[in-house]
Amino acid sequence: MVVVQKYGGTSVGSIERIKEVAKRVAATRDAGHQVAVVVSAMSGETNRLLALAKQISPHPDERECDVLVSTGEQVSVALLAMALKYMGYPAFSLLGHQVQIATDSAFGRARIKHIETERLLSALQKGHIVVIAGFQGVDAEDNITTLGRGGSDTTAVAIAAAIKADVCEIYTDVDGVYSADPRICPQARKLQRISYDEMLELASLGAKVLQIRSVEFAKRYQVPVHVRSSFCHDEGTWLVQEDPSMEDVVVSGVTSDLDQAKITIQRVPDRPGLAAKLFTPIAEDNIVVDMIIQNASEDGSTDLTFTVPKGDAQRALARVQAIMPELGARGVTFATDVAKVSIVGLGMRSHAGVAARMFQALAKEGINIQMISTSEIKISVVIDAKYTELAVRVLHDAFLGQTG
Amino acid sequence: MVVVQKYGGTSVGSIERIKEVAKRVAATRDAGHQVAVVVSAMSGETNRLLALAKQISPHPDERECDVLVSTGEQVSVALLAMALKYMGYPAFSLLGHQVQIATDSAFGRARIKHIETERLLSALQKGHIVVIAGFQGVDAEDNITTLGRGGSDTTAVAIAAAIKADVCEIYTDVDGVYSADPRICPQARKLQRISYDEMLELASLGAKVLQIRSVEFAKRYQVPVHVRSSFCHDEGTWLVQEDPSMEDVVVSGVTSDLDQAKITIQRVPDRPGLAAKLFTPIAEDNIVVDMIIQNASEDGSTDLTFTVPKGDAQRALARVQAIMPELGARGVTFATDVAKVSIVGLGMRSHAGVAARMFQALAKEGINIQMISTSEIKISVVIDAKYTELAVRVLHDAFLGQTG
Repeated sequence: MVVVQKYGGTSVGSIERIKEVAKRVAATRDAGHQVAVVVSAMSGETNRLLALAKQISPHPDERECDVLVSTGEQVSVALLAMALKYMGYPAFSLLGHQVQIATDSAFGRARIKHIETERLLSALQKGHIVVIAGFQGVDAEDNITTLGRGGSDTTAVAIAAAIKADVCEIYTDVDGVYSADPRICPQARKLQRISYDEMLELASLGAKVLQIRSVEFAKRYQVPVHVRSSFCHDEGTWLVQEDPSMEDVVVSGVTSDLDQAKITIQRVPDRPGLAAKLFTPIAEDNIVVDMIIQNASEDGSTDLTFTVPKGDAQRALARVQAIMPELGARGVTFATDVAKVSIVGLGMRSHAGVAARMFQALAKEGINIQMISTSEIKISVVIDAKYTELAVRVLHDAFLGQTG
Repeated sequence: MVVVQKYGGTSVGSIERIKEVAKRVAATRDAGHQVAVVVSAMSGETNRLLALAKQISPHPDERECDVLVSTGEQVSVALLAMALKYMGYPAFSLLGHQVQIATDSAFGRARIKHIETERLLSALQKGHIVVIAGFQGVDAEDNITTLGRGGSDTTAVAIAAAIKADVCEIYTDVDGVYSADPRICPQARKLQRISYDEMLELASLGAKVLQIRSVEFAKRYQVPVHVRSSFCHDEGTWLVQEDPSMEDVVVSGVTSDLDQAKITIQRVPDRPGLAAKLFTPIAEDNIVVDMIIQNASEDGSTDLTFTVPKGDAQRALARVQAIMPELGARGVTFATDVAKVSIVGLGMRSHAGVAARMFQALAKEGINIQMISTSEIKISVVIDAKYTELAVRVLHDAFLGQTG
């Protein structure tokens, strides 16, 4: 088999951990597989480097920031390749520009456009272990780029797609994807497998173990991804293409997201073009609006509520206030003590009454629903932040049961 | 003017120091010059990285070692370019492979073969400040290479030669080249200028401020080099092509070298081919023999003495002992309590009696000379190590006088 393994920052967080990773890589090759390894920077290193940059400038030049932080992965690949060579294995490191992981020029958040496979494939066929720096690439002008936080996952999945690997193993410090955050919900259980689409919807769970863009990549190229722990040998969670049996499970997971702010515009005259007038300036400011709800009232005016990430809330509010006279609204309110709680599952497509069951479960605990939004395989509600953990447990009980 | 500036590890040893360097670079550009800057790793960084490698393996893979340690300069160039951009100057960093500093594949001690100048020259002509990583290059197979300790000096001089710079300024933590080590000889004075050949002979003084290979480069391409301090604005020492007036100075500097071991083979039958038989195995072991002296005695046997660096002494001794039976010598002695003291000056070529004056000065203090070796512009003697400082002061007094 052709295996791509990716080790995150904590997995290579010390010299001892790097030696452990080398043993695991070596064992995979001893089992007869061809192995390409993608590694992140040692944990803490990227933050250490960014702190240096911040001492130079509050807004460090983005091109130079990528030159700076890409050294983190460069150190890791060199040390891991050394460890493998010391154990007697033919291994060598490749940086983003050496592989030729071609990206656009969006420094700090570059997107992979193409991966050269010739050198990789020929090395793997010769039995060499190739240790590839995650998170980094090179643009058309030979500048170093980085893919943004968590980008090593994307590197690994993209490499796996490019060389048509049989599996992409993502080693991390948790042992898989859970049906809820185990710190909130003791009944949460590890999922054996999950579809790409469910994983995308489980963003707030998934983001902790897997970068969302890597899931999009895995879905597009149908890369089998195995999320597992580098601290044990247990099976983790497989991300796979959806199959008919997966619809039997109504709800795969319950997630919560506290990074939400809610803005309500009260009593705005309900005229065509209102939403466009409101959301165009916000979009121009690169603020991502999540949920939008509009309630028409009888007097021809409406209340319009939407949510944005907390970090963007003040900017969004300023944009709204700037056009308040034009909108003719009575006022605007603003809240950050809210949470979004979601249930996700392929089975929602074929099972009726899922939303009703969700709302009943919350009502039974006296939890008021402020907003609702649905997709084909997800239902999200916005509630008072103080009920977050309770809501997650109640919904997990209702759909996933008390026992594993 | 086109100016190449090189800043060493202590000059960029902290964020504050990097900001100071940025100011100095900016001032040079404000004065109307085109500026390319070469920087070393922040002081301590290369050792920190090598210590990581040593924890992985006692003899880390050389290719991966270069991948590892080259991150030191990568961090420095990114931070300096950021600082310059923050000050409003158009600046960007280039790594060895981005410039295309093409080297051979001798990892850890690579030699520069060619430097691409097109991108550099076009950036300089546009008024950009180019910040170049010292110490590193790239081989024909796109592997990262390093030039060995002090290699950033060589990078700077090679860049200056390639772009035909008007001056290569080497900024360091001392303010120039001195006529002797000021810690040994309080009368030592800063040299205003010195020829390339004298600088090469003043190895033990020069090595502290300038890597010897960079001097060879400067000589070959006649690059004017200005060695000066990054902590003040004083003029330092100019390395220049020799001119007739320089022969007026008989002795430019006095140096001492304690890294010497002396091996003497006693009473070896004096037959043709003796030296070849002795030194061939030592050369095969990559040991550099410095001085060799052979005294024929009347009974047809000879005493043969030579010096090697202290670190190679045990290996050299083992080689000698292995061939002792073949040589038919009476015995071998070994000493490490010796020092080499030298005087260097272009004027020796035209001034007679310099050696005699040197020997008299030492004799007057009762310092016995164990070995003598001379070149066109240098006289070296090996003496008892305990007289090292005294010998330097005595010779400085004799040739360079008490007053600056």
